[in-house]
Amino acid sequence: MENRLKVEEVAQLCINILKKHDVEENDAITTVHALIEADLMGISSHGIIRFPLYLQNLKDKNIEKSPSVRVVSKSINTAVIDGGNGLGQVVSQQAIDMIIEKTKEVDIFAISVRNSNHFGTARYWAEQLQKHDLIGIAMSNVPPIMPPTGGAEARVGNNPISVAIPSGKEKPIILDMATSNVPFGRILDYQSRGMGIPEGWAVNAAGESTTDPNEVINGGFLFPVGGPKGYGLSVIIEALSSLLSNGAIGSEIQIKHNTPINVSHFFLGIKVDSFLDLSLFKNNVDQYIQFIKNTKPIEGISEIYLPGEMEFGKLQVNKENGLFIPDTILREILKLAEEVQVEEEVLLPIYDSLNKKV
Amino acid sequence: MENRLKVEEVAQLCINILKKHDVEENDAITTVHALIEADLMGISSHGIIRFPLYLQNLKDKNIEKSPSVRVVSKSINTAVIDGGNGLGQVVSQQAIDMIIEKTKEVDIFAISVRNSNHFGTARYWAEQLQKHDLIGIAMSNVPPIMPPTGGAEARVGNNPISVAIPSGKEKPIILDMATSNVPFGRILDYQSRGMGIPEGWAVNAAGESTTDPNEVINGGFLFPVGGPKGYGLSVIIEALSSLLSNGAIGSEIQIKHNTPINVSHFFLGIKVDSFLDLSLFKNNVDQYIQFIKNTKPIEGISEIYLPGEMEFGKLQVNKENGLFIPDTILREILKLAEEVQVEEEVLLPIYDSLNKKV
Repeated sequence: MENRLKVEEVAQLCINILKKHDVEENDAITTVHALIEADLMGISSHGIIRFPLYLQNLKDKNIEKSPSVRVVSKSINTAVIDGGNGLGQVVSQQAIDMIIEKTKEVDIFAISVRNSNHFGTARYWAEQLQKHDLIGIAMSNVPPIMPPTGGAEARVGNNPISVAIPSGKEKPIILDMATSNVPFGRILDYQSRGMGIPEGWAVNAAGESTTDPNEVINGGFLFPVGGPKGYGLSVIIEALSSLLSNGAIGSEIQIKHNTPINVSHFFLGIKVDSFLDLSLFKNNVDQYIQFIKNTKPIEGISEIYLPGEMEFGKLQVNKENGLFIPDTILREILKLAEEVQVEEEVLLPIYDSLNKKV
Repeated sequence: MENRLKVEEVAQLCINILKKHDVEENDAITTVHALIEADLMGISSHGIIRFPLYLQNLKDKNIEKSPSVRVVSKSINTAVIDGGNGLGQVVSQQAIDMIIEKTKEVDIFAISVRNSNHFGTARYWAEQLQKHDLIGIAMSNVPPIMPPTGGAEARVGNNPISVAIPSGKEKPIILDMATSNVPFGRILDYQSRGMGIPEGWAVNAAGESTTDPNEVINGGFLFPVGGPKGYGLSVIIEALSSLLSNGAIGSEIQIKHNTPINVSHFFLGIKVDSFLDLSLFKNNVDQYIQFIKNTKPIEGISEIYLPGEMEFGKLQVNKENGLFIPDTILREILKLAEEVQVEEEVLLPIYDSLNKKV
């Protein structure tokens, strides 16, 4: 039987661990909620699997537990935030809250953020803006992992971007994509199964296309989606996040414990009803969603999905059935909990779940 | 010898033809300049080759020669424009001028445009914003030509997007991409040369991947770049252009004389110096450009290019050497000129150039 955990219990455990490491309660809640939502949506690569890595970075002082997040410049429609090297979720939540607050007064607000850390999924941030009837945009740079077109070295990140569009009765449309053809984890996955990778996914250390995952893992790089297109999108994301915030680029962005450090973000909220009556817009979106969903599917496909729709489906199922976290990760988290003597009443339900499985 | 024409002479000929069809002089200049700049940049698919198609649409009243371009809603940071079914370049230039004017007062201005027509290259518009030290964004929907992921029918356009980033001493960074893997013209090109197309470029009428260009041309579709990524980007562009402006979607967007009709656009300008001192930003961009250009190239590649850089190179060469336009197109334009008895002094230099070649 699959081991399903109560969402609240896992969350409380992780929150308490962070608190024991002197992370403020609100910051701990923000960080853990963002990770768990990714798990619930089936995006486990950006879920609680990251928690031990974040914690190691806090312990090693690669990330500040009590960051001084500062607005370093501000105008009526824009701001630059210095994240004070805080947890990416803590910094990003402050930026998102600021956009939500500011767009009560103005129709567009944009924030470029420097000196932050891995912020989880981009969609988590764009989606919050969307809930306030904004078109929400979130992006981030990450360390170089792709060559520019024609290059034999990694100089651009597979920088992610999310755009969220509010809807009426339908689920909102949420694009969330990285600018590589596939994530690096996919290469590792193919390697572990002894399989070759398709042409176009990645290149070897000389920048040449390869189908051997080992060549990619040993000094190779990911390939930008659509070649110059993915490369170009990645450059634009870099410009909006780090060049506009005076943040770090290239090798100044590092990986510590498998997690990017010293990254920059860009967030933008656009108020829908400054353009068009909100209910008319939402009706337009719903009609468009129906238009797309009514596309005749190819053989073997039962349903056409809008961007982000599948994740909402998984969210609902997992919220009902509980969170699935691999035992190895769970045991790792329990070890971290014991290190800092987390309260028994928080630990016990998790142990119970683990034992039930046996 | 290649037949090179003086840019001003070709421009004047086309402008005079449009004027004879009661297009206002300024509108004629705007349209022709946009087309010719595409040719000069080597983007001939969006160049003067379109002129006879535009003219046919004007003659057939598919496009209004004297459109009533109206601002239908407006806020401090946003506007919706109804293009009155005018030439896409005429409508877009008004939107761009409005953004340039408005951003003298505010830091961000966005315009969603409905009821417009083919606007040429997206970069032409983003680039103008960039010249005013704005980060410029331009996008447009086009008629459905790609299936959504899993679909066997075309329901999304290969909607183009351009983003322009101002620079200092270096050329500005200009991304300009469509959301399909390749343009439709590439499929036609492979067919004409009797060649198969690579896997992933396009699908047949059943939505199945094909390497036979004939299958694509006979009822097939283009494939979105990166599958769900290109599909997702296309949906977002649709939302910002047509859903936000209450414009046409899907089959309401038509093709007349090989040119999309009744399309919507979205333009956004973000003032750089509201975030960061302008010279510091430009310095950041220049440094980043150098960082990318210094990437070690793969064997056989002599130079790494930033997005849009190659087109600037071609622009310079072609401005010096003159415009190359295929004789068939030139003769077609001359025929159109004679139809409306364009002035001899405008015609003669073009005939001279044609005769010189023989």
